[in-house]
Amino acid sequence: MSGEDAAPAEQQNAVEQKQETKPAEEPKAEPPKTEPAPASGAAEAAASPAAATEKVPEEEAFTYRALVLTGYGGYDKVKLQVKKGKPTLKAGEIQVRVKACGLNFADLMARQGLYDRMPSPPVTPGMECSGVVEAVGEEVTDRKVGDKVMVLSRFGLWQEVVVVPASHTFLIPEGMSFEDAAALPVNYITAYMMLFDFGNLRPNQSILVHAAAGGVGIAATQLCKTVKDVTVFGTASASKHETISQGGVTHPIDYRTKDYVEEVRKISPKGLDIILDPLGGSDTHKAYNLLKPMGKLITYGTANMLAGQKKNLLAVAKNWYHQFSIHTLSLIQGNKSVCGFHLGYLEGEMELITQAMDSILDLYKQGKVKPHIDSTWHLEQVGDAMRKMQERNNIGKVILTTEPMPEEEKKEEPKKEDKKEEKKKDDKKKDDKKKDDGKKEEKKDDKKKEEPKKEEKKEEEKKEEAKKEEAKKEEK
Amino acid sequence: MSGEDAAPAEQQNAVEQKQETKPAEEPKAEPPKTEPAPASGAAEAAASPAAATEKVPEEEAFTYRALVLTGYGGYDKVKLQVKKGKPTLKAGEIQVRVKACGLNFADLMARQGLYDRMPSPPVTPGMECSGVVEAVGEEVTDRKVGDKVMVLSRFGLWQEVVVVPASHTFLIPEGMSFEDAAALPVNYITAYMMLFDFGNLRPNQSILVHAAAGGVGIAATQLCKTVKDVTVFGTASASKHETISQGGVTHPIDYRTKDYVEEVRKISPKGLDIILDPLGGSDTHKAYNLLKPMGKLITYGTANMLAGQKKNLLAVAKNWYHQFSIHTLSLIQGNKSVCGFHLGYLEGEMELITQAMDSILDLYKQGKVKPHIDSTWHLEQVGDAMRKMQERNNIGKVILTTEPMPEEEKKEEPKKEDKKEEKKKDDKKKDDKKKDDGKKEEKKDDKKKEEPKKEEKKEEEKKEEAKKEEAKKEEK
Repeated sequence: MSGEDAAPAEQQNAVEQKQETKPAEEPKAEPPKTEPAPASGAAEAAASPAAATEKVPEEEAFTYRALVLTGYGGYDKVKLQVKKGKPTLKAGEIQVRVKACGLNFADLMARQGLYDRMPSPPVTPGMECSGVVEAVGEEVTDRKVGDKVMVLSRFGLWQEVVVVPASHTFLIPEGMSFEDAAALPVNYITAYMMLFDFGNLRPNQSILVHAAAGGVGIAATQLCKTVKDVTVFGTASASKHETISQGGVTHPIDYRTKDYVEEVRKISPKGLDIILDPLGGSDTHKAYNLLKPMGKLITYGTANMLAGQKKNLLAVAKNWYHQFSIHTLSLIQGNKSVCGFHLGYLEGEMELITQAMDSILDLYKQGKVKPHIDSTWHLEQVGDAMRKMQERNNIGKVILTTEPMPEEEKKEEPKKEDKKEEKKKDDKKKDDKKKDDGKKEEKKDDKKKEEPKKEEKKEEEKKEEAKKEEAKKEEK
Repeated sequence: MSGEDAAPAEQQNAVEQKQETKPAEEPKAEPPKTEPAPASGAAEAAASPAAATEKVPEEEAFTYRALVLTGYGGYDKVKLQVKKGKPTLKAGEIQVRVKACGLNFADLMARQGLYDRMPSPPVTPGMECSGVVEAVGEEVTDRKVGDKVMVLSRFGLWQEVVVVPASHTFLIPEGMSFEDAAALPVNYITAYMMLFDFGNLRPNQSILVHAAAGGVGIAATQLCKTVKDVTVFGTASASKHETISQGGVTHPIDYRTKDYVEEVRKISPKGLDIILDPLGGSDTHKAYNLLKPMGKLITYGTANMLAGQKKNLLAVAKNWYHQFSIHTLSLIQGNKSVCGFHLGYLEGEMELITQAMDSILDLYKQGKVKPHIDSTWHLEQVGDAMRKMQERNNIGKVILTTEPMPEEEKKEEPKKEDKKEEKKKDDKKKDDKKKDDGKKEEKKDDKKKEEPKKEEKKEEEKKEEAKKEEAKKEEK
């Protein structure tokens, strides 16, 4: 679930076998209860069990759109489908009408079959979303219909309706937009727990934040600035330096043109107190050697494994070969700490997560942290959204909105740069509900929204039609 | 320098070669400047360089007793010798008249050649002591003659006079005895940095303290009690349970008759937040598996390597074979942290150490921590003192005093249990200067002081005579 995270490589080939035993191993790991839509029309028909035919028409008429990973591979493997049947709520659960969803690195890994925390396809991805409570199960006392909430889950949130344990939700504070609320949970909880639990960050310390323009990177930088006189080294490509500097990075480093180890040593010859490592492989070795005595290396992903749209076996093997292994005697002689973090493996610890979230929301209310939205995309555009993130073209969070895509956009041919102004207006209309986000960030976001969209539009239209036909068949 | 610490096994056979390059590698690692006494009379004569003959008689007449490790092996390898020649002070250094010295596990490892932070014999061991400043070098502004200080060093403090950088000393607070002051630095700094830097100990957490009746164990337990509602599991043999329970251990576990992992799981099925591991080998594996998510394993020694008076190659090999090595992917999937700590490798970080010491002394002044002295021994009795610690018969700290051994004690045959009362009185007299330590603990300490002493007495007397003769020869 962690922002820059990756599936542990050692289990990548074992995902399917493992799936079978997972429910028994991890009773708490309940995904949202809305059924995943099957990959094909035929399968979709089969997905509604016999019982469905006995349901009252109202329940059967209940449909909602959902993104479904139909098989491992490229961006086109995540398809927009329509699920049907009103979900039932168990005790402790709530039903949420989803407004916005966050994209995370682990979603990209999952699409390639590199993330063992998501069941095998067909399955709905998505670890975080925001929305409005529209039904409440028995024994739920702290959520009511109409509450605006953020949701955390192992997978399954990229759809219009989700059913989740109330304990996996957090009330959205006054004035926070749904986009911000969808951007916050995974990145900020990850950054917070790494910095303040494992990292034990204190005044005057120095830290290296890789991918400082990514979701976790921006969250970590903001959280570092809540502690006095922390020096933040942040890697990012040069075009992102202005933004991350404004966000609090003391020393931006262009990792594409410079050796970040050398750059850090120039300024901090003794090394660093904390290093956040989302990369894995040989970068973990570098990080370990760059630690000061009493330094802490916190590794939370293997993004180096992710090279290209589809699974790159060479990248996976290389990462695996260079994977870091540490001997306790080396730790003793170096007075060093090596920590591993991954929110996706922490779902049994909702108490710890809720504590972290409470602290984060306090900081949000004080204006000390605020998600930086890179761009917002319609569900139909998920492929482009994933591409933007995977190709590292984002600054901050990539968000999906469940808002229907305007008909004119669907029918239009792909817009290019010359149509920017027109599209900007469209986007502005959609953004009317973002009363408070305002300012600079939003303007940047709007610009970004213009870039994506299209290409898959026609394909989507075809699918929509195909689905309607299938839906008709089912009704028969 | 860490209390329960051990030399890293991988370097044990390389100690001698390494020694040659050490000064260049570690300019800050200056041992106290008083010259180590050589192993034999002949060598001792050679140790006074030609320049010595040009010194004024007063300086040449300056002698002091020193314990010297004359070769790797059993308890008898540490011998009491007389060093001569007044040390010279460089800028930033002070000369301290030593009152009491602390014994640490690393000293035991060093005697067997298992600790690479001490030069090869002949060399004076000793990582901590207390005493009175009797000379001050140039540029020293924060220490003056007459100040009572604690001293930390990589080795070389088991002698009556030491010259050390002023920055490696700490002022003894009002009312603290020299014994307590000699007991405090290594154990408390080790425990403090492990718990509050790496461990990030917080209210309601649970912790396993191995060797809970040892110096670091008692310090760690006391420090845990400064945090609200911390549950302390402590291993110790059954006879020590009453003491450690009174000291704050919530659940004492007799590791000799019970499986500590099972015992912990009975009470904390999910495992523990922090585990302090001075043992190494297979116990580190057990500790890792016993961690909760977000748990921290802090390993700070390989005491399992220490089996018997002399180096036990089987124990060393076994420890080495079982030595723990961890893969980052396992850390990520477990959300775990593995840290290594060893004060002996941290000497370049006096700022961090001083910060920790300041906090510890604040807690001392508030009455929240206080060293527990197991027993105090004369320099002549160092063999017995080491034996007591190595055979795990101590509860708390084993201390050496530089106070001269009363003549009657030297001439007496070894006293046994029946002479307890008489010896108690002797000890009481010596303890008159401990005005404040008082109470229960001191009474226990007195009892313990009766047990040791003797056996090597006669040998020591012979040595003293031999040395006097050698000294005479030198004067000629």
